[in-house]
Order: sequence, then structure tokens, then C-alpha cells
Amino acid sequence: MHMEHMRMALELAAKGAGHTNPNPLVGAVIVKDGRVIGRGYHKRYGGPHAEVEAFASATEDVEGATMYVTLEPCSHYGKTPPCAQAIVAQGIARVVVAMEDPNPLVAGKGLQILKDNGIQVEVGVLEEEARKLNRIFLKYISSKMPYCILKTAMTLDGKIATATGDSKWITNEASRAHVHELRHRVSAIMAGIGTVLADDPSLTTRLDVPEPSHPHRIIVDTCGRIPLDAQVLQDTPGSRRILATTAKAPIKKREQLAALGVEVVVVPEKDGQVDLPHLFAWLGEEKIDSILLEGGGNLNFSVLKEGLVDRVVAFVAPLLLGGRDAKTPVEGAGFPHVREGIRLDDMEVHPSGGDLRIEAVPRKGQVGNVYRID
Amino acid sequence: MHMEHMRMALELAAKGAGHTNPNPLVGAVIVKDGRVIGRGYHKRYGGPHAEVEAFASATEDVEGATMYVTLEPCSHYGKTPPCAQAIVAQGIARVVVAMEDPNPLVAGKGLQILKDNGIQVEVGVLEEEARKLNRIFLKYISSKMPYCILKTAMTLDGKIATATGDSKWITNEASRAHVHELRHRVSAIMAGIGTVLADDPSLTTRLDVPEPSHPHRIIVDTCGRIPLDAQVLQDTPGSRRILATTAKAPIKKREQLAALGVEVVVVPEKDGQVDLPHLFAWLGEEKIDSILLEGGGNLNFSVLKEGLVDRVVAFVAPLLLGGRDAKTPVEGAGFPHVREGIRLDDMEVHPSGGDLRIEAVPRKGQVGNVYRID
Repeated sequence: MHMEHMRMALELAAKGAGHTNPNPLVGAVIVKDGRVIGRGYHKRYGGPHAEVEAFASATEDVEGATMYVTLEPCSHYGKTPPCAQAIVAQGIARVVVAMEDPNPLVAGKGLQILKDNGIQVEVGVLEEEARKLNRIFLKYISSKMPYCILKTAMTLDGKIATATGDSKWITNEASRAHVHELRHRVSAIMAGIGTVLADDPSLTTRLDVPEPSHPHRIIVDTCGRIPLDAQVLQDTPGSRRILATTAKAPIKKREQLAALGVEVVVVPEKDGQVDLPHLFAWLGEEKIDSILLEGGGNLNFSVLKEGLVDRVVAFVAPLLLGGRDAKTPVEGAGFPHVREGIRLDDMEVHPSGGDLRIEAVPRKGQVGNVYRID
Repeated sequence: MHMEHMRMALELAAKGAGHTNPNPLVGAVIVKDGRVIGRGYHKRYGGPHAEVEAFASATEDVEGATMYVTLEPCSHYGKTPPCAQAIVAQGIARVVVAMEDPNPLVAGKGLQILKDNGIQVEVGVLEEEARKLNRIFLKYISSKMPYCILKTAMTLDGKIATATGDSKWITNEASRAHVHELRHRVSAIMAGIGTVLADDPSLTTRLDVPEPSHPHRIIVDTCGRIPLDAQVLQDTPGSRRILATTAKAPIKKREQLAALGVEVVVVPEKDGQVDLPHLFAWLGEEKIDSILLEGGGNLNFSVLKEGLVDRVVAFVAPLLLGGRDAKTPVEGAGFPHVREGIRLDDMEVHPSGGDLRIEAVPRKGQVGNVYRID
């Protein structure tokens, strides 16, 4: 019963994906005498918290009931009053939470309010699942840096396009639909100028959901080479267009872009390119908690080399294309030796139609690249 | 019981792997009153058949017993007398076989002898497993062309080496051990001159088995560029060294190679290269029933393009190396469009230590490449 109710709360929480950033995904279920009498989730940034939604949905008096909630109830006045106080006021007898608030400054305070008011508290039910669900939030709240997902799509011989540049379609519909889910989930999509010049992508979300989110679009373009009519620069309500460049970009081009409503961010140079750690830190300050990195190969290598990738999602199609000149998912100069390569941990393989979706986590603290223990 | 005994027979059959080529792998189990009273398998080419081995191992009178055998007993006098006759002579009451003899000229004849002598016969128990076990034999007996396994080993970004050529070690020990099992299993290993010049591999089997087989070594070298001191040309008892070349190779070089005991096979040219279908047909005539193709990228592409690959075994390591100039598993000119690429069916994913081993079958009869329906 315990696990079932928390699982229901986690499933509710997941419904907010793409709309709560940079807030966490939270779900809550109220149970009385074994019956679920209320449920809610955090639907969008700035909206009511899950606990408040659950109270509002209650079908009978919640006094003496148990609340299952995927994250420790908040204890501070933010955009909404503290949930811990509301739980006390409503006469809840017992609170089961999946995980503490990861913010060390507030962790445990919400639970303490509950305990001080005689409410029975249990922590850690389905904690691992809750942590997975809030991977983005956990990284962002602890580092203020965006959680970066590198997405690639290649053949079983490592090609993302043929030697002539054809790439439609290497992966199947199920895989492409999953990419749109990933885009929906994150705050922003990032691509390099090479990809813009080669493919002219729009980088929008085509997900069939009632209210698809419109992730911001970030183009890394050291020299300001982007054409003014690039698809990715088209205005979409709610989606910021950020062009990260350097002093190398002509002033006039920057002005033209700004006139289109594009945010031109001039970043210091590092090795003659946009300083990526600097850019990521700035994006974090801008409340961009998550980035889907969709290359191409040169940008992918640079971001990986800087240790800025938190997760790799690699689609592999059952197809062979060959071609010494065909493009591959990660290019640039590359690591000169195998021992310097980026090792991946926690590899998962998921079927994706007839393709594979392989997910893994770059190992931190490696010698030979700039990954540090964090 | 039925399935269990046939499974035992299949497991016995598999023990012959690497030693019976171009014969099939066959296992036999004799069961009386539910007790296994005999078992045997075809141990090596030219040795006794599985049925004969099983009779020789019998711990009691086999009269009235049931024999489980993975392939229809033979009906012809070859290197040994026909097993169907032996089964009749021994007074076996019932024979269960996994599959008929795939050779259409003899299929059913062995079973007919059994039936004509009042023996109860059942066919098709674990047939799919039996067909998998004898993939090589099934291809070779029906086409006289070698069964070709393309083996690749790459990172999750599609690299088989760094941009500087370092490849030790991309895959882990479990994967490398599996490659040695594959080498042990086949009649021959094939590599291109590019790989020989770059890596100087020995292409021998380092499997820890009592009697490792020594597959023949085939080098495809259109212009006869191989150095006379290449590792792959070193003499190993039981392993033929075959250099497939064209009239482009200098006569003197051919003589020097022949003096070392290397078989220099001068093959017609096709598009300025060794004519691969011609070479494969010749290898089939030479009783080479199976080839492990270990590239590099140019040869791999050529063999794939000619429709000569029957199975792909691709190891994928949880590692990212980057590098626009890093080598990939299949190179050459490549297919210009995605629709012309080689689609793979029946994809299987197996864990291999921390790596993945992905196996799949190139689809036949595709438009746009030379695959034909066979």
C-alpha cells in the first residue's frame, strides 16, 4: 500500500514535466482508511504546490489522513505559503515523503515543522525513483549550473548522416517522438552554428501534448555566422532565442540579431571559442536549469571536454551507412588516447521501436580530461 | 523431459564448435525409462558422428531406448557409415530430431530409413535453436559460400580508435574474450591490407580451451603491399595464410610470399579492387565455410556493399572519444543516401561485461545496394 501510494504520487509528479522548471516535479496523494481521497501535483512554475492541489481535490475531510508526497514539504514563504504549515492546519496525522529537500539550507526544516506539531513522519519511500525523476532539479539546486543532456542519433556504424549529408531518417518515429519528449522536458535546446548552417533546424517541440512547452533555443556561434533568416531564429511565444557569441562577431551582425529580438550574449573566449563553462554559468543564473544538447559533433566534443554533460542519450538505429567522410556524433579534435576518453557509467539500454536508446552518465573526476569530482 | 533431453543434445553439439567445419555441429542423447544412458557429439571433422559417439558411451543396453539427436541422422556412406543404419541395428525404438538435413538432396532419407524399419520418428523439437546453432552450416550447405560475420568494436560515439590511432583498449576483457571465441568458431579470419599496415595484427586465437582451433587467415591486398615480416604471415600449424590479390601485385612480391608458404590467390579485379564475390566463391570451394571479417573500415564497406555479410556482431563500449579524424567501423565511400543503407533485422543486445554486444542480420533484397533475395 505504502509503495503503491508513493508510486501514484510519483506518477502525478511526472505530469508536470516541462512546465515546472526550474522548480522540482512534485506529486502528493492523501489517503484515509486505505482510500485515496485527494491527489495533486505541481503543474507549472509559479502555480500551487502539489500538497495544496491535493487538499483542493479532497473528496472528504482530510483530518487524521496520511499524505504521501514525493519531496519534503516546503517551510518557507516563496511564491506560495509554506506547505508544512498547511499540512498542520489541515489536521493530517501522518506524512510519508520520498526524499528530503536537497537544498542543504532548508533540508529537514519542513519535516521539523511537521514533527513539532505531532505529525508522524516517514522519509525515504521510493527515494531512488524520486531522485531519478528530479535529476534536473537536484543538479541545478546544488550547483546552479544547467543539467545537460547530450542527445545523439547514429547508425550501428557510428554515422549521424551519410557522406553526402543525408540524415532523414536514421532513427524511427518512436525515437524521434522521444526526442520531442526530451525537448519538452528541458528549459532549453542548444546547437552549434555548424548544425544551423548544415541543417537549418527549427529546434521546436512537436509533441502531441495539450500544452507543449517551448524550450528556449541557444545557438553557440563564436564568430556570429548565423544567417538572419535561420529557422531557429524565428519567434515562438515563450521561447527565448539566445545567441552565444564572442567579440569576434561583427557589431553590425549583433545589432541586426538584437533587432529581431534575439538575445546576443557576448561571452569571453577560451581557446578561440565561446567559453562554455562561462556560458553555462550565465545560463544557470538565467534560471535555465536544463539543456538538451543537439550538437553537432564539434560542439558536442567541446561541451563533453569541459565536463558539462550530465547524461548521454544515444539512439542507435539498425542500419549501416559507411563513409569515411560521413559525420559522427562527437567530432572536434578528439581525445588522443583511449585512456583520456570519457568513460560512461550506469549504462541503460531501452528498446525504441526497432532502434535502441542507450542512456549513460559521464564519469566525473577523470584524469586526462577536465572532469572534476563534484 | 522431451525438451530437456533435446537441450542436452544441443549443448553437447555446441562443444564441437570450431572443430567440425565444414560439417555441422551435432549432439545425441540416448534415454531409456527416463534415464540418460548415452551421450555423444561430433567432435571434429572426419571423426565419428554424434550418434556413434552416443552408442559408444552407452552404460546399458540401448535396445528399446529413445535417441534425441539435433540433426536428421545421415543416410549416406561418407567418412563414416550411415548413422540411420546404425540406429536400426542397435534396436532403438524411437528417434526425436530437432531438424531435417538441410541438404535438399538428402533431406528426409535418413528419417525414411528409420520409419521403414518400424522406428517411431518425431521431427522439429527445438528446431529454432538447432538452426541457430548451425547457422554457418545451413548457409554453406545451401550456397557453398562462406557464412560471413562482420565484427566491429566501437565507442558510443562510433569510433574504433582515437584520431591518433590508439585503440587499446576500447572494449573490455569480456568482449575481447568473446572475439577470440568467434575466431575459434570460424574457418577463417579476414582483414584488409589497411589494418595490417596500421596495426600489424596476428589474427590468431588466444582462447583458453584445451585444443584451440587455428582459423585460416585471409588478407585482402589488391596491390600486394603487405610487408614480408607482417605478424599475420607468421606460420602457425594448421592455419593457412591466404593473400588475396590482383594482377596489380608485383610478380616478385608474389614469389617472395609463396616462398614463405603463403598462398597467393590472384583474383580478377572489380572496380579496381579484389573482386570479393569471386574471392568468396573460391573460398567456399576451398571448404572455408565461415569467415570472421575484422576490417578495417574500407574492406568492411566493400564486403557489406557486395551483400556478402550474413551477421553483424558489434561491440559498443561505454566510452566517448570524439575526433573528426578518428576511424569508424565502416568507411569507404559509404552509401550516399539513408534509404540505400543496409538495414539490419533481428537485432539482439547482450551485456558483455560493461560493454554491449549487438548482433543483427543484414536485410537481403534491398533496393539501392547489391543485396539480392537468396
